[in-house]
Amino acid sequence: MTSTYLDYNASAPLRVEARTAMLDALADLGNPSSVHAAGRKARARVEKARLQVARLVGRGPDSVIFTAGGTEANNLAIQSAVASGSRRLVVSAIEHDSVLEPARRAVAATEIWPVTTAGLADLDWLKAHLSNWTPDDGRPFVALMLANNETGIIQPVAEAAELVHQAGGWLHVDAVQAAGKMALNMAETGADSLALSAHKLGAPQGVGALVFGPGSVMVRHQHGGGQERGRRAGTENVAGIAGFGAVAELGIQSSPPAWRDAAARRLVTAGAIDVGAGCLRLDNTLCLVTPDYAADLQVMGLDLAGIMVSSGSACASGKVAPSHVLAAMNLGDLAGNAIRVSGGFATTEEDWIRFADAWLELYSRHQTRRHVSAA
Amino acid sequence: MTSTYLDYNASAPLRVEARTAMLDALADLGNPSSVHAAGRKARARVEKARLQVARLVGRGPDSVIFTAGGTEANNLAIQSAVASGSRRLVVSAIEHDSVLEPARRAVAATEIWPVTTAGLADLDWLKAHLSNWTPDDGRPFVALMLANNETGIIQPVAEAAELVHQAGGWLHVDAVQAAGKMALNMAETGADSLALSAHKLGAPQGVGALVFGPGSVMVRHQHGGGQERGRRAGTENVAGIAGFGAVAELGIQSSPPAWRDAAARRLVTAGAIDVGAGCLRLDNTLCLVTPDYAADLQVMGLDLAGIMVSSGSACASGKVAPSHVLAAMNLGDLAGNAIRVSGGFATTEEDWIRFADAWLELYSRHQTRRHVSAA
Repeated sequence: MTSTYLDYNASAPLRVEARTAMLDALADLGNPSSVHAAGRKARARVEKARLQVARLVGRGPDSVIFTAGGTEANNLAIQSAVASGSRRLVVSAIEHDSVLEPARRAVAATEIWPVTTAGLADLDWLKAHLSNWTPDDGRPFVALMLANNETGIIQPVAEAAELVHQAGGWLHVDAVQAAGKMALNMAETGADSLALSAHKLGAPQGVGALVFGPGSVMVRHQHGGGQERGRRAGTENVAGIAGFGAVAELGIQSSPPAWRDAAARRLVTAGAIDVGAGCLRLDNTLCLVTPDYAADLQVMGLDLAGIMVSSGSACASGKVAPSHVLAAMNLGDLAGNAIRVSGGFATTEEDWIRFADAWLELYSRHQTRRHVSAA
Repeated sequence: MTSTYLDYNASAPLRVEARTAMLDALADLGNPSSVHAAGRKARARVEKARLQVARLVGRGPDSVIFTAGGTEANNLAIQSAVASGSRRLVVSAIEHDSVLEPARRAVAATEIWPVTTAGLADLDWLKAHLSNWTPDDGRPFVALMLANNETGIIQPVAEAAELVHQAGGWLHVDAVQAAGKMALNMAETGADSLALSAHKLGAPQGVGALVFGPGSVMVRHQHGGGQERGRRAGTENVAGIAGFGAVAELGIQSSPPAWRDAAARRLVTAGAIDVGAGCLRLDNTLCLVTPDYAADLQVMGLDLAGIMVSSGSACASGKVAPSHVLAAMNLGDLAGNAIRVSGGFATTEEDWIRFADAWLELYSRHQTRRHVSAA
């Protein structure tokens, strides 16, 4: 059975460039903090990757803190904001759990910024909300992701940044899903801090970065040796970081939207709803909601047919919960019926066709079963 | 020029077993939290490694939390103790910075537990200290490493555990340097929590674990998806974890002490002090102090001769500070004169001989220069 992987938003396969960079690094030895020859070579690998990652978002290398992934980067931004005096955190309703959860657990009030039914963060709400700020609230901290992981919908980050900056605030942008899939210049987004994850771009799991600008204040996060200029102690994951750097250099390489759109049309004709249709969204992502067809049935049926997609985001082992993202878009009743199909650099047109073929067959069988049991 | 690596305590080279396990994992794709075939396979890799790492210390797999390294594991233990009510932290004076620094920055009083001139944590001090505890201090939290990273000296952890447990406390043991170099059974150490780092054993950098027992309470640490049973969110570093598991299975494989001792004898005859001589210490580690011969001169001279060792521990980029470990042993005046030479699984007798030859030649030249300039 041919296996078709359409779950890039959960994790991309390793790119050959990342593999080569990792193997090079793994063949060497040494701790980047050691002063001898091996240590200096390891250090050079980390610093080369820092430059590569910085360039991906149009910043200088000094603004990159390597982390163990996007989750740590998002946690670090929120922790830094709270430590530097933010007492009210505004996070969009469609943020990833790695933003929502640390915000909820922070020693600060957390407010959920609603999105419109089109899935876009509501700028009027933000404007009104920021006008109602007191000195006791500290500096406004606002988190808005660049592209949503479940729908691919691209958020009005630059517009939000303008409002946040007018209020003297800090805009944190989770760019984990956007990086490598769309043009990304940190200055143009207006982000004061930006979270990245290596494995979503085809580098290994376990590596990420927080990129920060002059509008943010980074705190010491993990204590120990003085790595990452004292901000994040611990021996660097040299091979993983080298792999991250190598893919950062490749720039954008997503799956052409025409293939996704052709598949979407076939499913919509059969009765599915293409949630992000008509929105500005990532080229690779398709979020489909099908009334009376539970997401887990779809995912399991497709899996048996050798096609790998997900229901919502892949975040917690075995978690099958209705999507908070779709609930925020007022699709709450259908939020348990959503699947996410996401391609990437190695995806072919045939993959999307196989997915649509298999889904249509499964759906037809599902409808037959429903009619039989209803009869 | 032959290159001789004797800095295993800073970072070990990658073992072939780790490389194979990593390459296997990297050839696959999928997020361990995804429910489809690729996700389940990635999950199985992580759980296999969890069992392998648990077995290394004689615990069950449910007690292993994978982290991005030993630093994160030590931070997590201290953070958990403070969150669960410890208001006084006792940490030995010779702990690694990844224990000392988070303790100093915790919202709790931190007391430094002195060591004897022989480099052993002073049990009488601990006993007296624990008898002077009030309910307001919360549960006693005590950190004592199993083997010191700079001297290799093995600490009286089981004896300390008895005292700590009599006082109802929690003993955290940083076993980063000990694991893979000596027998290590968590129950025998009496540790309530134990920190491990993969790259010190020949697995890749960027992976570690906190192993916990019934006497410790782990808090949620990094927030987001529910990975690691909610304790540490973030997509798992599957390849790194697989590599860690593979080396954990290999058990102990250090460098025979006879080779180190033979080298030490030659240097001591020439005027160096073997700091751990006569102590119970790791087979692979040699800490040498030479009066009137600065550590950085020794390290740089040896590096030019192709021999890689370190001065103190390799923790902070470019940091050249006198060793706090030797200062705690009342060798403060000589703490800037200490080098650490550490072998490992791939070290040969020839490596130790080359080191001793090169050092003796350098030291002889150094003495000549000193006599000339003094004349």
